[in-house]
Amino acid sequence: MLFNRILPIKEYPVNVPPIRTRVGIVGAGPAGLMLAHLLHLQGIESVVLEARSRQEVEGTIRAGILEQNTVDLLVEAGVGDRLLAEGHRHTGTQIRFAGQGRRIDFEALTGRAVTVYPQHEVLIDLIARRLADGGDIRFGAGDVEVHEHTGSRPFITFVDGDGQRQRLECELVAGCDGSRTATRNLIPEPAVRTDYFRQYPFVWFGILAEAPRTSDELIYAHSPSGFALCSTRTETVQRHYLQVSVDDTVEDWSDARIWDELHRRVDGPGAEVREGAIFAKSVLPFRSFVCEPMQSGRLFLAGDAAHTVPPTGAKGMNLAMADVWVLADAMTGFLVSGDRRGLDGYTAAVLPRVWRAQHFSWWMSTMLHTAPDASPFDIRRQEAELDTVTSSDAGRTLIAENYTGLPLRERVYARV
Amino acid sequence: MLFNRILPIKEYPVNVPPIRTRVGIVGAGPAGLMLAHLLHLQGIESVVLEARSRQEVEGTIRAGILEQNTVDLLVEAGVGDRLLAEGHRHTGTQIRFAGQGRRIDFEALTGRAVTVYPQHEVLIDLIARRLADGGDIRFGAGDVEVHEHTGSRPFITFVDGDGQRQRLECELVAGCDGSRTATRNLIPEPAVRTDYFRQYPFVWFGILAEAPRTSDELIYAHSPSGFALCSTRTETVQRHYLQVSVDDTVEDWSDARIWDELHRRVDGPGAEVREGAIFAKSVLPFRSFVCEPMQSGRLFLAGDAAHTVPPTGAKGMNLAMADVWVLADAMTGFLVSGDRRGLDGYTAAVLPRVWRAQHFSWWMSTMLHTAPDASPFDIRRQEAELDTVTSSDAGRTLIAENYTGLPLRERVYARV
Repeated sequence: MLFNRILPIKEYPVNVPPIRTRVGIVGAGPAGLMLAHLLHLQGIESVVLEARSRQEVEGTIRAGILEQNTVDLLVEAGVGDRLLAEGHRHTGTQIRFAGQGRRIDFEALTGRAVTVYPQHEVLIDLIARRLADGGDIRFGAGDVEVHEHTGSRPFITFVDGDGQRQRLECELVAGCDGSRTATRNLIPEPAVRTDYFRQYPFVWFGILAEAPRTSDELIYAHSPSGFALCSTRTETVQRHYLQVSVDDTVEDWSDARIWDELHRRVDGPGAEVREGAIFAKSVLPFRSFVCEPMQSGRLFLAGDAAHTVPPTGAKGMNLAMADVWVLADAMTGFLVSGDRRGLDGYTAAVLPRVWRAQHFSWWMSTMLHTAPDASPFDIRRQEAELDTVTSSDAGRTLIAENYTGLPLRERVYARV
Repeated sequence: MLFNRILPIKEYPVNVPPIRTRVGIVGAGPAGLMLAHLLHLQGIESVVLEARSRQEVEGTIRAGILEQNTVDLLVEAGVGDRLLAEGHRHTGTQIRFAGQGRRIDFEALTGRAVTVYPQHEVLIDLIARRLADGGDIRFGAGDVEVHEHTGSRPFITFVDGDGQRQRLECELVAGCDGSRTATRNLIPEPAVRTDYFRQYPFVWFGILAEAPRTSDELIYAHSPSGFALCSTRTETVQRHYLQVSVDDTVEDWSDARIWDELHRRVDGPGAEVREGAIFAKSVLPFRSFVCEPMQSGRLFLAGDAAHTVPPTGAKGMNLAMADVWVLADAMTGFLVSGDRRGLDGYTAAVLPRVWRAQHFSWWMSTMLHTAPDASPFDIRRQEAELDTVTSSDAGRTLIAENYTGLPLRERVYARV
């Protein structure tokens, strides 16, 4: 893989017949797999190319907080059975600061909720469904390169799992290859593409622990020494996060220091972190990114390939789903009726939601974290913000409606 | 005056008998005059010392947006007749960005409104009422110095309007001498007092113009080139503000440049700035300040002497009124029944409102202004914030309830 990337194969295969499909999809993450599934529901064939093996894709443990929209979309699309059976519906969350907890009751405030169901479980469900439907997913596809996306006959070359060079001919290409995307770079920056970027002066340190639940709902805790998040995987496996310095490494955080800091940041009336054996530690990146436009010619970006959010707002997978919900209809309009309006308007249709999610993620991040250069004024002001927002129905509703997700907009192109 | 300040008179007067009162109040601004009036309603005498002449106090033109609370308080206290007759009740305001206007309907969202009634008119009403009630206001009082406020017999020395040295003996002292306060400095910093401070990377440039109204309601306009505010004094006199650089002076802004920039920042569907003859220009400071505690011994600070807000949230005079509403009851409890609980709890009782107002003023300022160092990401994020907040009932309500003012809390000490 690495070798292929350093020395890309420039010749196109001649010794095997090309694969033909209508939509070539780069990446088998939430965006790519859901797009393939939604297109299939419209009777449109696709091929998904994924560099990793199926085992890797299904085994990469990732968090997952699904907006009400995402749950509704998965259920409506017929891939929500296990999610409904095994996911945990959270009707609220707790925000803690100044030693007290304030609950945001999503359901009472908005009639909506979120469901905790890890991303890899969503991927397992989508892969199973695609394969059951006869879908074509090529795992272990190396050296994926998109060609001539600005013309009318794009194609994708890759090396398949057997080392065979392949050529995939298609009418449209979807770049769903995540934040380390190669497809994004096909849209030249800055000539065509503008990148919007923000770094944060902190990162998250995440642990997995064999421990009892600290709380039935997530706890977002602000403290002068930093942010902490208590979440849960199962009855016995917990996932907690600490705001740490950008220079910190896993080695800087002993188990004892982690629990001490979690207690300091979270404990108080109504909450006490419950300890256990830590079996995984990692440092998570923390940044905001958007590129505009999210398309060029016959190439369309979706999900992390086009935008990244810091994790505080729990928006990553939800934005990917919202993108492909629009994109599937736009592609269908074009491929079934030759109507380009949906495709032409794709970026404009999805960007407002992307930027609102960027704002919400920035807001939750800056409201809950402690900036290393915060002045005493800033800290008091921030506590007053938490007080203002969590003590008013309006403030709580503003959090709840953004956290559970603004309803998906009217489809940009009607289903055919 | 200046001479007196440079060479303060340290000897106490011996050749005139001391003035005696129950509360000595330094400063005849909104806080000092309203405190004197509220104490009078409880049967408690006070003397107000003011360095400026009555004419200066009444003639210093200041903006005034009165929260619903402030209106209710003035009316309840019997000093609201002219305010109700001549003030302009605003049931909403317009926020503009990205070339469009969105109305925040205060009344529909919260059942409350604000009243535009300039601060100097409030002062004219309060002075007239104090004098009609036989109140003692000493204008032109120079070299005011508070003594022995940490003991049980504080006194204030000053030079009266006739140049006579005077000594005012009292039981309690109120420091209501505005943002250039001398009384605040009697609470030693940092040993006892902590100052919280924030500067902003912009200031306001204000004009008065003989022109027709641009709008019946205030317009708060965000644009990439900066913030603008259109407000009104009368049918024919308008008050507009532009965000400008901290280095800008009045000389940098010709009339033509001012109108050009107002048009650029405000005009669009539903709004067009109406020009006229500019007859006053000024640069307004822009900062946030809070000191804690707001008291020491028998000295109690209120209004700008204790805290300053940037003008975007229109909170300055309202916070002063909220402070003295609490302080008058606390002083009454002590002076009538000897109960110190209200006085001891004064700072703790008023600070939550002060900090919420600080947050709201910071929020309105940062959401509406364009920071000189804003990145392209920041600008897009900010537009998404304006979109999120103004397109949702929850967001509009959060603005409306803070702008019209959170209801005054329970009195910390019951009226006797």
